Amino acid sequence: MINLKQGERIDDLNRNGYKIIQSKDKFCFGMDAVLLSGFAEAKSGEKVLDLGTGTGIIPILMEAKTNGEHFTGLEIQHESAEMATRSVEMNELQDKINIVTGDIKEASGIFGGATFHVITTNPPYMNENHGLKNPEMPKAIARHEVLCNLEDVIRESAKMLKPKGRFYMVHRPHRLVDIISLMRQYRIEPKRIRMVHPFADKEANMVLIEGCRGGKSMVKVEKPLIVYKEQGVYTDEIYDIYGYNEEK
Amino acid sequence: MINLKQGERIDDLNRNGYKIIQSKDKFCFGMDAVLLSGFAEAKSGEKVLDLGTGTGIIPILMEAKTNGEHFTGLEIQHESAEMATRSVEMNELQDKINIVTGDIKEASGIFGGATFHVITTNPPYMNENHGLKNPEMPKAIARHEVLCNLEDVIRESAKMLKPKGRFYMVHRPHRLVDIISLMRQYRIEPKRIRMVHPFADKEANMVLIEGCRGGKSMVKVEKPLIVYKEQGVYTDEIYDIYGYNEEK
Repeated sequence: MINLKQGERIDDLNRNGYKIIQSKDKFCFGMDAVLLSGFAEAKSGEKVLDLGTGTGIIPILMEAKTNGEHFTGLEIQHESAEMATRSVEMNELQDKINIVTGDIKEASGIFGGATFHVITTNPPYMNENHGLKNPEMPKAIARHEVLCNLEDVIRESAKMLKPKGRFYMVHRPHRLVDIISLMRQYRIEPKRIRMVHPFADKEANMVLIEGCRGGKSMVKVEKPLIVYKEQGVYTDEIYDIYGYNEEK
Repeated sequence: MINLKQGERIDDLNRNGYKIIQSKDKFCFGMDAVLLSGFAEAKSGEKVLDLGTGTGIIPILMEAKTNGEHFTGLEIQHESAEMATRSVEMNELQDKINIVTGDIKEASGIFGGATFHVITTNPPYMNENHGLKNPEMPKAIARHEVLCNLEDVIRESAKMLKPKGRFYMVHRPHRLVDIISLMRQYRIEPKRIRMVHPFADKEANMVLIEGCRGGKSMVKVEKPLIVYKEQGVYTDEIYDIYGYNEEK
């Protein structure tokens, strides 16, 4: 028995039969979260934290795709955290996934230092808040650096990661210099970067990055991830990440 | 009348009828230099410096491709600088290109501060010198950080660039975090990045980067540059950069 509130719907995730509750006008996941769940790794026995989990999409997909032992999602917006909790219960994942309501800026105070093997995050991207008409709106909080900024995310992650723990983030390429500079400043050394391009001949519109807490200086820039092979048609890799098993 | 020394040969550059002298065992240019000359821009009236110019390939190609007013090439190895000077004379470019023998580490002392609108560089890539058997050999000096390192290149460039002057470098992606961190440290803000992949499905093996002296934080990651479309066959873009006007 699932309780849906007004404006909510249930979508299929094409993984383990899992489903997710979304609310179109307030909380819905994007391709960025799905791509991050395909880029991040969690191994057997590892504890994973997702910062700013929103609908809970990243912990739910990573529970399906990886061997990680336990997943925690932190979300500051109560309404979104409550919705994510219902998605966890709908998939009977209460033993594997825990949604916590709280502030990224205080995350290391909530969870303690050196607690997690892996941290994932699809944080608010936009750092231009001055034009924002309704900074208290759910979508604004999820997308703009209203309540936390990039440095908060990286600083708190550095505190909460165990030595050699891994940090996975999806963000916008125009912030790449800020991302790399802050990661190095807080000693989460970037180790893997993957640029996401909407088409093979267009500039990147997302970047996936993996860092290692206390790692050595040496980064790999992986093959580009191309989203569309032609207008309206995803590349095979995108279909794979989304879990479509096409019969060809 | 061209004087060639033992082991030297003359190669055609497919640009303006220009040619270049190379010495296979000592000084020869690679694709990285050619790609940099296609990535860098010099406008009418601008003075350009190439740090570690080797054969002089970058100033000669940029003289052909851009409207830059004057090009200087700095090279520490006397034999290479002398060879580059002969290439400049062979192309009758003495009024446009000047080759100077000198040390990158002391470049701002040689040329003075805030002197150039544009700096290009294809510096030694390798920062593992401990395994180097002959660090005094010409190829080792050109390729390994024997006589100068990445920080020397960026520090001296920052001193010699005029405000808002542009810095163009080709380097190896595994140093990208070092590159970006040092550029920001010395206030050459990265503005454009282009990853070079040997094939569309392989990790990047070169990176082209443009910075702006005193620029604001905002970087663009351009479409990937793919070298081969299949084994042994360059992509059209590579043929274009090399100046082959294919008739199709």
